[in-house]
Amino acid sequence: MRIILAAALVAAPLAAQTGRPSEAVNVFIGTGGEGHTYPGATAPFGMVQLSPDTDTGCTIRDCYGHAAGYRYDDPTIQGFSHTHFSGAGHSDLGDVLVMPVAGDRVALDPGDAKVPGSGYRSRFSHARETASPGYYAVTLDDAGVRAELTAGTRVGVHRYAFAAGRAAHLVIDLRSSLYNYPGKILWSGLHLRADGTLTGFRETRGWAPGRKLFFAMRFSSPLTDHAFVDREEKVPYKGFAAPGRGSDAVAEKLGRQLEAQLDFGRLTKPLEVRVALSGVDENGAVANLEAEPGDFDAIRVATRGAWDRALGAVDIDAPPAMRTNLYTALYHTLLAPSVWSDADGRWRGPDDQVRVATGYTVRSTFSLWDTFRAEHPLLTLVQPAQRTCDVVSSLVASREASPYGILPVWQFAGRETWTMIGYHAVPVIADAYLKGIRCFDAPRALDAMVASASYASYGGLGEYMKRGYVPIDKEPEAASKTVEYAYDDWTIARMARAMGRTDVAAQFDKRAGYWRNSFDAKSGFLRARLANGAYRTPFDPTAINYGSDYTEGNAWQYSWFVPQDQGALFRLLGGDAKTVAKLDAMFDFDNSKLDYSHAEDIAGLIGQYIHGNEPSHHVAYLYNYAGAPWRTQERLTQIVASQYKPTPDGLSGNDDLGQMSAWLFFTGLGFYPVAPGSNEYVIGRPFVSRAVMTLPNGRRFTVAADGLSEANRYVSQVTLNGKPLARSFIRHDEIMAGGELRFVMGAVPNKGWATAKAARPYSISGY
Amino acid sequence: MRIILAAALVAAPLAAQTGRPSEAVNVFIGTGGEGHTYPGATAPFGMVQLSPDTDTGCTIRDCYGHAAGYRYDDPTIQGFSHTHFSGAGHSDLGDVLVMPVAGDRVALDPGDAKVPGSGYRSRFSHARETASPGYYAVTLDDAGVRAELTAGTRVGVHRYAFAAGRAAHLVIDLRSSLYNYPGKILWSGLHLRADGTLTGFRETRGWAPGRKLFFAMRFSSPLTDHAFVDREEKVPYKGFAAPGRGSDAVAEKLGRQLEAQLDFGRLTKPLEVRVALSGVDENGAVANLEAEPGDFDAIRVATRGAWDRALGAVDIDAPPAMRTNLYTALYHTLLAPSVWSDADGRWRGPDDQVRVATGYTVRSTFSLWDTFRAEHPLLTLVQPAQRTCDVVSSLVASREASPYGILPVWQFAGRETWTMIGYHAVPVIADAYLKGIRCFDAPRALDAMVASASYASYGGLGEYMKRGYVPIDKEPEAASKTVEYAYDDWTIARMARAMGRTDVAAQFDKRAGYWRNSFDAKSGFLRARLANGAYRTPFDPTAINYGSDYTEGNAWQYSWFVPQDQGALFRLLGGDAKTVAKLDAMFDFDNSKLDYSHAEDIAGLIGQYIHGNEPSHHVAYLYNYAGAPWRTQERLTQIVASQYKPTPDGLSGNDDLGQMSAWLFFTGLGFYPVAPGSNEYVIGRPFVSRAVMTLPNGRRFTVAADGLSEANRYVSQVTLNGKPLARSFIRHDEIMAGGELRFVMGAVPNKGWATAKAARPYSISGY
Repeated sequence: MRIILAAALVAAPLAAQTGRPSEAVNVFIGTGGEGHTYPGATAPFGMVQLSPDTDTGCTIRDCYGHAAGYRYDDPTIQGFSHTHFSGAGHSDLGDVLVMPVAGDRVALDPGDAKVPGSGYRSRFSHARETASPGYYAVTLDDAGVRAELTAGTRVGVHRYAFAAGRAAHLVIDLRSSLYNYPGKILWSGLHLRADGTLTGFRETRGWAPGRKLFFAMRFSSPLTDHAFVDREEKVPYKGFAAPGRGSDAVAEKLGRQLEAQLDFGRLTKPLEVRVALSGVDENGAVANLEAEPGDFDAIRVATRGAWDRALGAVDIDAPPAMRTNLYTALYHTLLAPSVWSDADGRWRGPDDQVRVATGYTVRSTFSLWDTFRAEHPLLTLVQPAQRTCDVVSSLVASREASPYGILPVWQFAGRETWTMIGYHAVPVIADAYLKGIRCFDAPRALDAMVASASYASYGGLGEYMKRGYVPIDKEPEAASKTVEYAYDDWTIARMARAMGRTDVAAQFDKRAGYWRNSFDAKSGFLRARLANGAYRTPFDPTAINYGSDYTEGNAWQYSWFVPQDQGALFRLLGGDAKTVAKLDAMFDFDNSKLDYSHAEDIAGLIGQYIHGNEPSHHVAYLYNYAGAPWRTQERLTQIVASQYKPTPDGLSGNDDLGQMSAWLFFTGLGFYPVAPGSNEYVIGRPFVSRAVMTLPNGRRFTVAADGLSEANRYVSQVTLNGKPLARSFIRHDEIMAGGELRFVMGAVPNKGWATAKAARPYSISGY
Repeated sequence: MRIILAAALVAAPLAAQTGRPSEAVNVFIGTGGEGHTYPGATAPFGMVQLSPDTDTGCTIRDCYGHAAGYRYDDPTIQGFSHTHFSGAGHSDLGDVLVMPVAGDRVALDPGDAKVPGSGYRSRFSHARETASPGYYAVTLDDAGVRAELTAGTRVGVHRYAFAAGRAAHLVIDLRSSLYNYPGKILWSGLHLRADGTLTGFRETRGWAPGRKLFFAMRFSSPLTDHAFVDREEKVPYKGFAAPGRGSDAVAEKLGRQLEAQLDFGRLTKPLEVRVALSGVDENGAVANLEAEPGDFDAIRVATRGAWDRALGAVDIDAPPAMRTNLYTALYHTLLAPSVWSDADGRWRGPDDQVRVATGYTVRSTFSLWDTFRAEHPLLTLVQPAQRTCDVVSSLVASREASPYGILPVWQFAGRETWTMIGYHAVPVIADAYLKGIRCFDAPRALDAMVASASYASYGGLGEYMKRGYVPIDKEPEAASKTVEYAYDDWTIARMARAMGRTDVAAQFDKRAGYWRNSFDAKSGFLRARLANGAYRTPFDPTAINYGSDYTEGNAWQYSWFVPQDQGALFRLLGGDAKTVAKLDAMFDFDNSKLDYSHAEDIAGLIGQYIHGNEPSHHVAYLYNYAGAPWRTQERLTQIVASQYKPTPDGLSGNDDLGQMSAWLFFTGLGFYPVAPGSNEYVIGRPFVSRAVMTLPNGRRFTVAADGLSEANRYVSQVTLNGKPLARSFIRHDEIMAGGELRFVMGAVPNKGWATAKAARPYSISGY
């Protein structure tokens, strides 16, 4: 039956839609509030994220709000730098800041945003700012320059139109960075090559200690003069001076606080600057620059096409605000993991060694604690399988290059940051394998997964393996670690069994049950235990503190994290009714006496449900497991309405490299991967009247919602390919076969749909 | 005739000598006084110079005396580090300091040399210290450890015998360095690999900004425990902690002030530590380690063999002290330029990019202002031609990788330091080419020479090309630069003409005469001129100051630097008699009222002749050009007796990477290359009764001195291959043909020998 369907479902080109998909994106969503997104130019998964930085001169604490460089409320732009995270809760990057300056006086410091003219920064207005995927433009009022940005995969292109008659300059400020602080910049360099190419590098510490980035820059007009300046004071010993002084050519400058002033004279046409990055070396950056030829307009058109193709994986029919939210969400999910290897395949690994990747593109920027949940599962539906295989091969190659011999935890620019907890590269790999994606080396991957789950020095794993839980007196955040390890272990077991490695499967199946060892049935909460077996006291399920029993959360959020065995959890909680009551208690909790302002990334609160951070993300879907899918539908309605808007402050929390957006995208379509590795998506309710996915295998899968309206927020009926679907989940293979998932929406709950045990989503003990 | 001779002269193995040549070397010569040599273990031209550092905790000024890490007078050893310059006047290196520590308490700071037990440093005594080429041993009294060192090309091997029953530890102190100062260490890393290999790196600034060095280390006994420690205080933001605490395994540490403590427990046999270096990356260091297998004894024996072969290029019969001096001098000339490329040919260039060298070994540590004089010319006689081609190919490859597009000036670890003046890679290359050494790419080399001589931004070259001299109001040390450029230019012209590039030859022949533009015939001195043509006043021919008219010298020394045209210079000075009188005035100058203590490297004074620094090195030979070779013989007797001793303070100045030693070696054999590029050696007087050189072409050239004694210090008669030699120079091809240069020595000067114009050494205007 499926085979017969398949032929009919293989996609023909979609009929012309109303406008390009890229036009439905609002790249400013998340640039205010807590979203930490950036509005600048980037290609899908591009190595370059060329975006305005409105402020970087901040201490570490102040930096949080400027994690992506740009804040919508800021009045000035400091410059345009080439690397940014989309929605990270911690930050770094902001590399190779370029700022156009016009006139005879060139300031080399950014100056005070409150004092116009005090530096090279410039005021700007949103009225003269526009942006879309792969393109950003703004008028720099003080400089009198129209600035445009676009980007290819490893290339960013600037176009600066200077006012007629004013001398054109660029300032390259290698001192500028996000999460900057004294001593961050370890070393940097500028080289002006004989052919006019400017190359350079920067080594920094901080979030990723010893990170190296190289660049190459070419200009559409020749330099009339240049100066390389070392702004570092008090260098006890600088060595001997290199050739070049005053107006003489300076070929090279090395130092810790470098700037370049580039002069172009009075130009009769806009200045275009092509910049490529490399993680390998300056020659790699030059090669990357040459691998993507073309001027500003050519790169802009090519990248717009790439975005239209990528976003065109789904054709969405929904109310305008929701359509914008969903396309923007999809856009945000297609930014990371970003390209890290050079065009020739060379890449720098976590051990700082350069290797060559063959058969795949190395990717980095892995915010895995966030993205294992929905971001990576989404990519298996909207991107070619090779994209996921790039991810898996990159993870495995990184592990093999890791000084620790384990998979990435939170990695960018090829380097490990040891941020957050778990070994969540594991569910990403298992999810891919179990979905039948096999363009990677599975035995090597399983080996990497087992190694990561067995590295005793990491996050209390030694204790976990010995005792069946992480003891809080040996390791902070022990409760969260215990349950996340147990889930990750379950995905290892699943993949190992599918590979016929029953030895590994048995070992990790056992560990998958270790969540029980930290669950206090008496209080009904996951709790941290001491090495002596006792639960740690005092216990306050609302407390959120760094280094506490939990990770960026408390007992309310973390007690629900058993994706591999929700049924067993719910039995511990006393059954369906008590579970529903406890879920309700979470959402309806009265926070009025609580203050979480000390904790970063605790935003988007609905009672003790915290949508702005990931531990809550699957919780609204759990009513399904207790036989009350209509309650899930209600909660999703509540969350979507309160947590997402098509405005700069439209994300209630950090987008976390696409996870917040992936949640919305799945939820908008009506289902969500509560347990990656299960090959099931739990059905919620759709927020689109129709969405047609063109799947990686070329087939089409349609979601339709008859009668959808604000009032009709409940699912009355569901059919899959015309047949009633009595269960509250759908399997991955059912989607990949192509077909139609059709909802009939109603104003009142259908409390009889999918309530039976067998109709509920996967759970070990439920089957 | 020569052809017939050749067959007879092709070398058969020499009859067994009395002892190995390496046994004649006293590696402690120069480790006291001003020599700046080190006594540690190294192979010929080895990348590794594994040697004790007696003190490194000094400020920049104090560091001068510890330029090579070891001072013979010091009472303690701080540790054994892997890189050292032999005789540099400026310094750096001292990388990867290793110190054995015994017992239960391990200090991580070196402590105070005056307070025994205050740190990991240890007292030692010369009575329990021994060293020979490729081997060093000492008893560390405080640690109770017998320490031995040896080295291969890219490998150093330590052997530490701990006292029975005491726990064995090593401290690796990556903070330690020569010419250390706050902020020098930019970044460093330690990695403990799963196979037990310790790898790491260090990036430093200072003399060579942005220098990178990588290492790999393996141990004959397994680690029982280890700790990596970051000693940096006040890091504002360190990122998140990597796995491993307390007794857990720590796989990696990155930071700016790193140390490792390695524990081995109680050992029943000596601990051997094999260490390889690389300028490329840590994997390169591992590969270099594996490319030279073998334990301590195997490496020691192999390197001793290599030294015996290298030193065996000359078989010397001389009074014991002189024989020691000469073999030690030869040893010192065979240390640099040292190997820089990895075993697989990869190397890091002056632009920090990694390339692969094929067909030659990349060498670095080019102290060219010193070594173009006699060190490089000597290598053409005592080393295979490939060694010189390695040098030339390395210089040319460096130039092609240089951000400035010019040949190295003073380079080490592949990086330019811009120390001293001139473009003296040029005479090194020309000397090689003109001697018929052709295993390098001559057109590329000539291109590099011309580029270096035409780089306007370098050292006033733009002005020099425009005006015919460097004006002192535009560029410091203008007088020295003018004459050194003119000489370098002459060698370009010579090589270009030999290559048939008459265009280039004509251009640089003209420039070779520019020395005249800075020579004040009225005062009889080379003087600095202003841009307006006037000589700068006040003028004091005895003044020595940094940034003065001259480079590490004054008018007395520099007025003799016209190697390409001494005849013309002497005519300017008023002819032979006046020249001889002026030379005598220099040597016999009364310094009693002068104080040069402010100037480094001004040592070894004989009047205004300063043997401790290079500008004087050719001067004693200039009497020959004025028809008074017996005066040269007298001065050489005077210099050798006063400036060289077989004792730690036996060098009167910095050995300067072999130049001081090369002077002695040539002089000891009776001739010296006053003008490299002329293919002539000026005859002085021999200090050996017999020396047999086995030349690179396999032939033998013998120097014999009949009747040599302290009294018989004059040359009475000279024959070449049995025929009287009436001229005071010998040509390179005459040496390379093999044969015998025989002197008959006498107690009184032969004032009639080689006085005729035609009998004098090469001079443009003299021919």
